[in-house]
Amino acid sequence: MQHQHKPRVIIVGAGFAGIFAARELAGGPCDVLIIDRNNAHTFLPLLYQVATAAVESEHIAAPVRGIIRALGRRAANLDFLMAEVKNVDFDARLFLAQGQDGDILSLPYDYLLLAPGSVTNTFGVPGADQYAFSLKNLEEAVRLRNHILRSFEAAAWTRDPSTRLNHLCFIVVGGGPTGVELAGAMAELMTGALRRDFPRLGLSRPCVTLLEAGDGLLPGFPDSLRAYAQKKLQRMGVEVRLKAQVSRVFPKGVELKDGTVFHAATTVWTAGVKGEPVAARLGLPQAPNGQVLALPTLQSRDYPEVFLAGDICRAEYQGRPLPMFGPPAIQEGRHAAANILRLIRRQDPQPFRYFDKGMMATIGKRAAVAKLGPLHLKGLPAWLLWLAVHLTYLIGFRNRLFVLANWAVDYFLSERVVRLITRQNPQE
Amino acid sequence: MQHQHKPRVIIVGAGFAGIFAARELAGGPCDVLIIDRNNAHTFLPLLYQVATAAVESEHIAAPVRGIIRALGRRAANLDFLMAEVKNVDFDARLFLAQGQDGDILSLPYDYLLLAPGSVTNTFGVPGADQYAFSLKNLEEAVRLRNHILRSFEAAAWTRDPSTRLNHLCFIVVGGGPTGVELAGAMAELMTGALRRDFPRLGLSRPCVTLLEAGDGLLPGFPDSLRAYAQKKLQRMGVEVRLKAQVSRVFPKGVELKDGTVFHAATTVWTAGVKGEPVAARLGLPQAPNGQVLALPTLQSRDYPEVFLAGDICRAEYQGRPLPMFGPPAIQEGRHAAANILRLIRRQDPQPFRYFDKGMMATIGKRAAVAKLGPLHLKGLPAWLLWLAVHLTYLIGFRNRLFVLANWAVDYFLSERVVRLITRQNPQE
Repeated sequence: MQHQHKPRVIIVGAGFAGIFAARELAGGPCDVLIIDRNNAHTFLPLLYQVATAAVESEHIAAPVRGIIRALGRRAANLDFLMAEVKNVDFDARLFLAQGQDGDILSLPYDYLLLAPGSVTNTFGVPGADQYAFSLKNLEEAVRLRNHILRSFEAAAWTRDPSTRLNHLCFIVVGGGPTGVELAGAMAELMTGALRRDFPRLGLSRPCVTLLEAGDGLLPGFPDSLRAYAQKKLQRMGVEVRLKAQVSRVFPKGVELKDGTVFHAATTVWTAGVKGEPVAARLGLPQAPNGQVLALPTLQSRDYPEVFLAGDICRAEYQGRPLPMFGPPAIQEGRHAAANILRLIRRQDPQPFRYFDKGMMATIGKRAAVAKLGPLHLKGLPAWLLWLAVHLTYLIGFRNRLFVLANWAVDYFLSERVVRLITRQNPQE
Repeated sequence: MQHQHKPRVIIVGAGFAGIFAARELAGGPCDVLIIDRNNAHTFLPLLYQVATAAVESEHIAAPVRGIIRALGRRAANLDFLMAEVKNVDFDARLFLAQGQDGDILSLPYDYLLLAPGSVTNTFGVPGADQYAFSLKNLEEAVRLRNHILRSFEAAAWTRDPSTRLNHLCFIVVGGGPTGVELAGAMAELMTGALRRDFPRLGLSRPCVTLLEAGDGLLPGFPDSLRAYAQKKLQRMGVEVRLKAQVSRVFPKGVELKDGTVFHAATTVWTAGVKGEPVAARLGLPQAPNGQVLALPTLQSRDYPEVFLAGDICRAEYQGRPLPMFGPPAIQEGRHAAANILRLIRRQDPQPFRYFDKGMMATIGKRAAVAKLGPLHLKGLPAWLLWLAVHLTYLIGFRNRLFVLANWAVDYFLSERVVRLITRQNPQE
């Protein structure tokens, strides 16, 4: 590839993969344009804390231009554009970006890194898209928080006991890390801050049901940790139902395949993710879950200058697809960027190798599970590790400080500080 | 008035007047129900800081149930209901509250305190309601912040110089405290954080125009302070136009009566307020500006058990109506509550006396004006006083701490930390 100009790299998506790729390319022999429909990087692992009023939405978001600035002078080759993906002409190497007003900008590229992430997968379960809440971006987290708080206000309002109970009940579908973390945080919210906010409701125990289709929570974790998580959640008052396959979601509850019905004003679907639908629109070859098939080098199958990273990327490692969460996205982003630099320097791209740092999930105060290679941690040590890791990867010194302050308040006072119902529009 | 039961007091509105009235009634011989359509009290004097990305919206809002809880055991007679005012049957002393689902609850009261506040008054200027932003509640502040940040992103996107300039320009209509504070904060935002966020835009000076219909900024302040505020704003790069009467607002600018046209993507209307329209619906006698006429005791003219406080209340003091801002609202709320307690104890209600603590407005870093009786302060002393007073009246220890932290960051680093564009709905 001959470059008459400085090679142009376009990164689509300012999630883990996109941001870590951009950092790798800062100061490199290329001009980098990061494109995202939002002006900020969102730290998705803490979305459940926004939904349960524990941290401010602003504190888990870092404006992309601020991230670039924080890299200093060497980031002079990075720029940002707030836009949607309209289309890509892979043959002409033109990226068509759609701006806020609908205008289209045609941007030539030499290398393209696609890292648009993933969306909730409800697997066609009737009613799930309409009636279940999702927790994949900041707006969804704020919407869920508003709904939880509104439901409690509605419970305080109604004089009918069964309606009241319905308003106070909460269902989480999916026993993976997000489902476990959300169920635990919700139970603590109900028996902590909301119990004190609503003394007349006489909340003595939470009404939280966690439904998992498999035969245990936290698939992929060691059995001892899975058992611990389940016992701990149950002790916190969460009703855990295993082998519970949801067949239908309706406005005030869910129905299982075996006919059991659970009533609740709030159902959250955390039982699946799939690749961002943009991949399908671009016509790239896909796996059944919407991920785009990538070569071991993270290049797309048909275009060597197009790379994939993060949840959208079907990268197999040791014959198995990698899970769709943070650590693989970070490593893939870095690796794709390194391979782009290799191509610019006329070197061969290298295959991606995943370094499995482990996995962790928090359950509640002083309770988490963590697997680090052969090491299995639970309880307080796992919880402290969880705190440290999440503060480390949260971008922005101030965000870390404020989130830590909120966690301290939550820890010492069982207080959830962001109990604010925001209106999406004043007419609402 | 004979009470067979504990007298019931309903307070409509959780603004300054409503909250300070409720605090006064805490522990009193009555049951108090605070009703608001939002679940939180908003500290309106800092809305312009939310709009200019200086503080988080959550940090100037305090959930009403949290305010009640913070009062401790003596607040056991206070409760909250999130609802709209549907109607009031003044003769039967029934308050009709409308809940989230549209249900109506009929609540009997012995005393009613109406403190619903005010809304923006555009005086029928064509286009002002449609095209100008308003800054009277949290949602409007967040919407304005989003629009400002989006306009800068749009400026980075466009390749047409005149479109770009339009995106970067900002008009404030109204030279009262809100207009002055917003214009100053906007100028600092443009030459501080946004200049660094958008190095390619080459922002050297702000494009902020402040339009005031009268012959000087800050009507009601001493002349020396008014002159200082104007000079200071001009030195910060704000174009101040006096005797500028807006005749029309259009999507990308405003036109004055003399035919002058100013172009800007953002116009904010701070030139007037009027009483919440709910007063008109209830059929209470009104002043032309939508305020409800009150007796010197703050009782309504027709119903001795109905009180008025805050911006909705046309209370005259020494023959002149009081300005519609914080200090009168706080004092009226307290006084109305004290009079309710007097009526419960079969004592005569007392006329309201306003204690004029003064007025202040901030302009920018180390620059504010303050009038305290005969004392006229400007510059650094006024600014420090402004900080202290606003932190004092901001409700919630944590809110104070976080806002102070943000101010410190702003002061030392000229950094605006909340540069996040939130989406009102994901489809947007």
